[in-house]
Formats: sequence, C-alpha cells, structure tokens
Amino acid sequence: MKVKVSRKAHFNAAHRLYNREWSDDRNAEIFGKCSNPNYHGHNYELIVSVTGEIHPETGFVMDMKVLKTIIREEVEDPFDHKNLNEEVDEFKTLNPTAENIVVVIWNKIRGRIPEGLSLEVILYETPRNFVSYDGN
Amino acid sequence: MKVKVSRKAHFNAAHRLYNREWSDDRNAEIFGKCSNPNYHGHNYELIVSVTGEIHPETGFVMDMKVLKTIIREEVEDPFDHKNLNEEVDEFKTLNPTAENIVVVIWNKIRGRIPEGLSLEVILYETPRNFVSYDGN
Amino acid sequence: MKVKVSRKAHFNAAHRLYNREWSDDRNAEIFGKCSNPNYHGHNYELIVSVTGEIHPETGFVMDMKVLKTIIREEVEDPFDHKNLNEEVDEFKTLNPTAENIVVVIWNKIRGRIPEGLSLEVILYETPRNFVSYDGN
Amino acid sequence: MKVKVSRKAHFNAAHRLYNREWSDDRNAEIFGKCSNPNYHGHNYELIVSVTGEIHPETGFVMDMKVLKTIIREEVEDPFDHKNLNEEVDEFKTLNPTAENIVVVIWNKIRGRIPEGLSLEVILYETPRNFVSYDGN
Amino acid sequence: MKVKVSRKAHFNAAHRLYNREWSDDRNAEIFGKCSNPNYHGHNYELIVSVTGEIHPETGFVMDMKVLKTIIREEVEDPFDHKNLNEEVDEFKTLNPTAENIVVVIWNKIRGRIPEGLSLEVILYETPRNFVSYDGN
Amino acid sequence: MKVKVSRKAHFNAAHRLYNREWSDDRNAEIFGKCSNPNYHGHNYELIVSVTGEIHPETGFVMDMKVLKTIIREEVEDPFDHKNLNEEVDEFKTLNPTAENIVVVIWNKIRGRIPEGLSLEVILYETPRNFVSYDGN
Repeated sequence: MKVKVSRKAHFNAAHRLYNREWSDDRNAEIFGKCSNPNYHGHNYELIVSVTGEIHPETGFVMDMKVLKTIIREEVEDPFDHKNLNEEVDEFKTLNPTAENIVVVIWNKIRGRIPEGLSLEVILYETPRNFVSYDGN
Repeated sequence: MKVKVSRKAHFNAAHRLYNREWSDDRNAEIFGKCSNPNYHGHNYELIVSVTGEIHPETGFVMDMKVLKTIIREEVEDPFDHKNLNEEVDEFKTLNPTAENIVVVIWNKIRGRIPEGLSLEVILYETPRNFVSYDGN
Repeated sequence: MKVKVSRKAHFNAAHRLYNREWSDDRNAEIFGKCSNPNYHGHNYELIVSVTGEIHPETGFVMDMKVLKTIIREEVEDPFDHKNLNEEVDEFKTLNPTAENIVVVIWNKIRGRIPEGLSLEVILYETPRNFVSYDGN
Repeated sequence: MKVKVSRKAHFNAAHRLYNREWSDDRNAEIFGKCSNPNYHGHNYELIVSVTGEIHPETGFVMDMKVLKTIIREEVEDPFDHKNLNEEVDEFKTLNPTAENIVVVIWNKIRGRIPEGLSLEVILYETPRNFVSYDGN
Repeated sequence: MKVKVSRKAHFNAAHRLYNREWSDDRNAEIFGKCSNPNYHGHNYELIVSVTGEIHPETGFVMDMKVLKTIIREEVEDPFDHKNLNEEVDEFKTLNPTAENIVVVIWNKIRGRIPEGLSLEVILYETPRNFVSYDGN
Repeated sequence: MKVKVSRKAHFNAAHRLYNREWSDDRNAEIFGKCSNPNYHGHNYELIVSVTGEIHPETGFVMDMKVLKTIIREEVEDPFDHKNLNEEVDEFKTLNPTAENIVVVIWNKIRGRIPEGLSLEVILYETPRNFVSYDGN
C-alpha cells in the first residue's frame, strides 16, 4: 500500500546552454538563443515526490517538514539567485539543460532520502517546458 | 490500447493531525501546528483517474457523468464543509493525514468502479503539498 | 507615475460562519453548511498590493522583502493553522466571512505601510470565491 | 538513466459527440448536451512527453524546438480553429471523444519521433476533464 | 467601506466571428480562421464581481449562493454546450466576439443585482485572451 | 461603453539589481542576492490590456492579432533570452527592477496604440511577485 507524497519548491537562476567542447559557432547553431553568452534565466519550479508505505503511527510516508528542509538545503540554497554555469559546481563542466539539472537535483536529494523510499523529481523550466526523472 | 481519463473535484474541510494513542505533548512535538486542538482547514482538490480500454460504441473509457456522480456521492457529500476528525467516521480513529485521506477516498471509489478498470486518486491538501495512490 | 507592486502569500485556517446574535436555526438557515458548528476550513491565498511612485535610487515602490515580513507578522503568523473564530481576537465577535477577513487584514497591514502609499488586499477563500478591499 | 521531457501546446476547436450508427434519440440519450447537433467547443490543452536517454553532447533527450515543430504540424495546424467532426478526416467516422482524440494525436506524433524514445500524450478537454495515452 | 466579491464560473460553446453585413471574403480577411463557417469553440471562464457595503448582520456584500444561481440561470444554462451564433438569440445578429459576449452577459446579470451594488464581468476566451466590462 | 481587452505574453531573461551610482557594498546591502554580479533570471509573464469602445463593425476594441504583433516586436523580440542589464539599451543605465521594466514596456507599447485607447501593463517577475502600470 504505497502512497506518493509531493512537495513544490522553486528557485530563480541564470544559465546558458553551452558545450565547452564545441566552437562558439556550433553552440549557436545547436542551442540558438539559449546559448546567448550573456545568459538568460528562468523561474524554475520543482516537484519532489517520495513514494513508500504509510507509517502506521504518524500517518506519514515521510514528514513533509523534513522533505522541505532537504529541498531547501540541497536545491534552493545552492541554486536560487545564482548563475548555474558560473556558480554551481556541477554545471561548470556539465551543460545546464533542464534534463541535466533534473538529474543533478535527483542525485543530491537521493542521498538524503531513506533507502526504502523511491524518489521522482519534476522540473519546470517554464510553464510550457518541463522534465522528470525517477532514477531509472 | 488503454487510456486514462481524469476528473477534478474539490471539497473544503477542517482537520487536525492527531494520534489518539499519544500524549498531547507527543502530538504537538511530531505534528507541530498541524495538531492545533482547535483545528485548521484546507481546500482539498481531487483528481480521480480511471484507466481502461475505449468502448468502441461510445468512445468512452467510462462515462464522465457517471464518474462525477460517484465522486459527489462518495467524497463531496460526506466530506465537504465537514470536520474530518469529528464528523467523518473513517477519521474518528484514523489520523487524517493527506496520505490516509487519499487511501480512504480510493477505497470508497474503488467499490463503485467496474473491475476491469484501474483507479488512481491524487489529493492536493494545498497547492504545494499533494499525495497520490493507485491501490498498489 | 505610480506603479502597483503585488505580493502573494497564504495561510490555512478553520472557520465557521456564525452570527452570535442569532439563534442556531437562523444561522443554519442563512449560512447553510458554512455554519457547521464543528468548523470547516480553507487554504486562503492573499495578494497584497501597494501603489506609489518609484523611488529613483532603488527602483522600488517598496522593498518586497519588507512587505513580505509585514505580511508574515500581521497575517501569516497570527492566522496560519488557526481556528479563526476561536483563536483570532478580531473574529471572536466578528463573523469571519471572506468580506470581514479582508477588511481586518487590510487594517492590520495599513498601519505598517508608509502614508504616501495606497493599499489593496485580495483574499481567495477558494480558487472560485474571492474578495478585495482597498480602503474606500 | 531515462528522462521524460514535456511540452505544452493548445488548440481551439468545435465538436459534438456523435455515433453515426445510432439514431438521434440514442445519441441524445447517451451523450446528452455534448451531442448538440449545432456543436459546442473547447480550448484543448496538450502535453506531449518524450522519454529517453540524455544525449551526452547536447544534454537533450530531444531538441524541444524539433518537438514544438512536430506538434504544430501534426496537431495545431490541422486541428486549431476547426470543426473536428466536419473538417478533420480522422473524426469524420470516429466519434471525437477526448479518448479518441488523444489516441489519434498520439498516432500522428508517434510516426515523427525516433524509435528509441517513448511517447505519452495528455489532452485537457477542460481544466476539469483530461485524458492520457502512452501507446500501451 | 466597499468590498468587491467575485465568483468564477464557466461554459463551453462553439462560435464563429461573422459580420452578416459583409461578404464572405471580407469576413475571412478581417477575422481569419476565427471566421471558419464550420465553427470552432472555447472553454469560456467567467469572473463575476459585485461591489458594495458589507451587510452588518450577515457579513456579506451579497450571498454567494444567490450570485451562483443568477450566473447559472443567466449564463450557464443558456450558453453552455451551445452554438452561440445559432442558438443564443443575442448573437443571431450580433457578432460573438469576446467583447460583445461580455457586454451581453453584463446586461443579463445587471438586471438581477440590487441597484446599490456595482457589477464587473471578466470573460476569458482562452487562458491568453480575456476581456472585462463594468458598465461604464 | 468601454471594454478592456487583455493579452498574455512571456519572455525569459537574466538580470541583476544594480545602482551604478552606488558602491558594490551598498548594492549588496540594499538588493541582497538579487544583486549577484553573475546575474539570475526569470520567466517574465506579461498581461497587456487596452481599453476603449467596441467598434460596431468588427465587434473588436482592437484586433488581438495586431496587439500580439506589437507585443512581439516591442517586448518579446528585444527582451527574450537576453541579459537585460547588458543587452537592452533602456537598462544599461536604469536598474531593471520589475517596477522599472513595466514602465519601460508601457512606454514602448504606448507609442503603437491608437490615442483613444488607454493602456495597462501587468508584469509577473515570479508567480508570487508582480507589478502593474497604467500611465498615471
């Protein structure tokens, strides 16, 4: 009897799509205006979901206050109001596409979630573009 | 060729998180302000989804008008504008966390849905916290 | 050249509609299920708007961080996860309809906003019912 | 390590629910006001999701600009501001229920997506009614 | 001390933009695909707002249950699942643009609202296009 | 008989809050993390509203296709996927707060709207912070 519990969060950041192995021309050709060297940015919205059995004493799969703290420490504090390419270690060499960001976030949160629970992360780059990853 | 059809509904209710086996102090420690003895409340939003084959004559998986009636009779009429702890039988002994509420709702609706169709229920306690259950 | 700046906030609370001067029967007749003596509740969403000239040095009408603090101290801390009728002084004698709540909130915030700025408050009781007040 | 990428789109169309093998009376009995011979209409909102490995050079599962073009050519251009029953070939004989529309859209887009990627389509007929199909 | 109270409602309808005094070519030139003779349609969302003093006994500007009934009788029943051009008297001669629809709705509701209260109607034709009218 | 017509649009951009007349310390003190020299960014959502009489022949206050083109040319093309401080002339000397951005947008659009129509612009910096300006 497994229930999925979900929590929304958000952060604002600047980024550019950029493959450092490519020439500037190739970056411009593949990534278009998303590769603007002066950066652009987004209000990223995040949904973090944890699935597991309901604990019979608390009625919780996981205490949402704990999950909220994990999201703040692993994602909001290091990413909010930052330039992802310049200031977040993971993206100094990794292109910060929505796909790569969601995998990085999943890995950071996974280490803080008890083993018996499964994890899914959805990341909205805009209200019209979003990605999700569940570790598989 | 299975399609999932979904229908939104909503109800407003008061509740408090409370384990009657625990002392008041322990309830306050674990559930914090959610355990306020004078209750607080939510606009619960509900998404009920039924998955199955499309009936070749109607083009429906299930008539949405029928699903709407089931949701009204099983959830909206007994839960809306109620105090879940005090007035809904299931929560007189069961702590009305979002997780427990979604399982109760799933069980109530499951009995009204034809056997060949599978059922999933998503319950938003707030726009930022939600849970889902599909019977597994 | 006046600009209106707006900030969203939210709180969850229990309440019932109740005129203490009326009989229970009259309360039930006028307020229907909203008068349930065991309470029901809502996720109240709030939009607080302040209108004034843009300060030429900061580019702000008002620092949003300050406005956020005022909303937390005047509304979120005293109202969130509370029973409005039982635990919020203003509603011990005043019926907590959305109309009366929005006027109370406006008055509490008005005292904290500089005189030259005008104030408007919108309060969503549900996503389908909301009220607004600007002091006039 | 599979990531799902999603893109929203929309189109406005008229339709009526109608089984041409049935009498008018039977259509009215089963489909109610949705079978109005003069048509009614919807703002259909669409979420198209593609799941696959992240390409190590681009950081993309699939270039969203390409997916956006596919959606426009396969769905928006042929369906937007159209009468589905009268002007869209697939629905001249097939009843345009949300379930049938989502399967038709899935089949049209499927042919344009590389084989190694899986596809899911969600179609909102209204903000309260929606359907999804993933080819299984 | 005037408060504005607002209520959301919705209806689904088919329409086409069409000036019966113009040639078909001129209609096509001015209204483009919105003039498709086979119709298209929308999920219209409506916000009806009434402004006035709070009644000291009820705490209401106007009983929302009454306003809900007025909206159902004046707008939802006659417009929902209808072809506006063909089946709604007002639009047999009047072009059903969002602007004209909102004025027609305002006039229908105005006659049912007490004189001392002012009225505003907002009509969303799509989530991206909307109009409002307050009688001035 | 004046009707207000509104159209939504959006652009993604990087920016930082920065008063070039101030020391770096003072910028950090007043603007906090919003003054990060490496920039952060937002999905800006825009609502442009034009108010005027309904033209009796078209049923329009203003052709929405024309308004959409004006917004694209004046706002989306010059602002989308840009660094506002570095790449948009108006903000090379003017601090790109939401308040200053909305006034710049209003002035750019005002020049393209016929004189008899009034104009209002609402700019969402995030779903929780927004500003509006109507030229007064």
